[in-house]
Amino acid sequence: MAERSRDWARAVRGLLLDVSGVLYDSGAGGGVPIAGSAEAVRRIKASGLKLQLCTNETQASRENFVKKLRAMGFDISVAQVTAPAPAACRLLRERGLRPHLLVHDDLLPEFAEIDKTNPNCVVLGDAAENFTYANLNEAFRLLIGMEKPVLISLGKGRYYKETDGLKLDVGAYMKALEYACDVQAEVVGKPAKRFFESALAELGVPPEQAIMIGDDIVSDVGGAQQCGMRALQVRTGKYRPSDENHPEVKPDAYVNNLAEAVDIILQQL
Amino acid sequence: MAERSRDWARAVRGLLLDVSGVLYDSGAGGGVPIAGSAEAVRRIKASGLKLQLCTNETQASRENFVKKLRAMGFDISVAQVTAPAPAACRLLRERGLRPHLLVHDDLLPEFAEIDKTNPNCVVLGDAAENFTYANLNEAFRLLIGMEKPVLISLGKGRYYKETDGLKLDVGAYMKALEYACDVQAEVVGKPAKRFFESALAELGVPPEQAIMIGDDIVSDVGGAQQCGMRALQVRTGKYRPSDENHPEVKPDAYVNNLAEAVDIILQQL
Repeated sequence: MAERSRDWARAVRGLLLDVSGVLYDSGAGGGVPIAGSAEAVRRIKASGLKLQLCTNETQASRENFVKKLRAMGFDISVAQVTAPAPAACRLLRERGLRPHLLVHDDLLPEFAEIDKTNPNCVVLGDAAENFTYANLNEAFRLLIGMEKPVLISLGKGRYYKETDGLKLDVGAYMKALEYACDVQAEVVGKPAKRFFESALAELGVPPEQAIMIGDDIVSDVGGAQQCGMRALQVRTGKYRPSDENHPEVKPDAYVNNLAEAVDIILQQL
Repeated sequence: MAERSRDWARAVRGLLLDVSGVLYDSGAGGGVPIAGSAEAVRRIKASGLKLQLCTNETQASRENFVKKLRAMGFDISVAQVTAPAPAACRLLRERGLRPHLLVHDDLLPEFAEIDKTNPNCVVLGDAAENFTYANLNEAFRLLIGMEKPVLISLGKGRYYKETDGLKLDVGAYMKALEYACDVQAEVVGKPAKRFFESALAELGVPPEQAIMIGDDIVSDVGGAQQCGMRALQVRTGKYRPSDENHPEVKPDAYVNNLAEAVDIILQQL
């Protein structure tokens, strides 16, 4: 498709990039960069295009996440990362909510300043090894004991790919708690419109001049298109050939990887 | 309500009883009988009414389950227990399915005769401590790797009560896998109509002459009523006062416990 029409690449001023599955494949030992991606990020910066990472990453604070990316050769700063935890903290403060956190240990620093006494909501992230039977029962009991249960989920992804295989993502555990408590979670992160709008504000570019590049057909591509952006799906990360027959979402283009997307976009500048 | 009208108790020839939350509260050390329930079972047997236990219990083989009940003073035989695992084994054999089992260790003997090599479906029970992050990821990977994923769930309860508190039931984990794999589970156990029909066949009484007594407004009461039975909700086990405002299911009567139900039914004989 990229061969046939490159209209989708015109009049671009900024790029939003998903991270896991686009820049690198996560996994044991921190993961491995996807070939050509670090160079692609350097070329974006050199071109004058604006760049913001738009991630549902909740296994690490932004500080540690950026350290990991820099160690893999990606020239990225903390301010260039839009992530669910800071968005959730804004929401908690706005509504006077005190969370019980079922999240990854490495995400806890993002919530350091938040009052967590006598919880009146549950915040669910990709807790990974913290998704134990005991921790899930504890979060469930707190929710079912609330007069009006409030469940805030940092993303609603189905699964993601690590170097040792596919893993259930936070959305699966969100559905378990939603069903058990007969409640609908509030999702902070992609594909929530408000989250993409935050990322665009930080990018400093209106939606019609921005392209989202991601490996998740629903969260990345569908979510960005809902906000008026163009969106590409890369054939890396959790991409599966069946995504190309998705009944509802059709990307503006498929590209083999980030490097190919950047090649085409820079040629159209 | 039991005080006001007892019409619901007329023309009864057999009783189907849910077990956990009706006969006993499950939990550490095997659980504790609910006051008056062992005596109520004796009175049912002495009355000549037929009796069958209709349970979604999947934490033990029927043999061990009956041993536990007998140790608590319930005069019950293995043949008087209708449970999901044997029903699932019939279904697996009928369809030539080879399961990967994510179930409680104590349930494994029920599947001893089933071919489990090279699995082409996943069978999910109330695995309790076996609901680990690793085991859930393993079941997920098998399902997502199947051309047409087949997920068989032994029940779809939201939660149940043990002596140390409420616990997430198999239905919550079923929803997690359904969402991650975009598949609909086939439920074996209450409230599936086919399961109630098996229990009635084993009871040997037509639905209009049978009463189901349970603590679960949806699985027990709703499921039995769908099969043409009358159904009572006891105010023991996981019963919560908000059940009495359920938007869809209305029991034929509420009773405080099994003993009260049996009192009223025997008076109407």
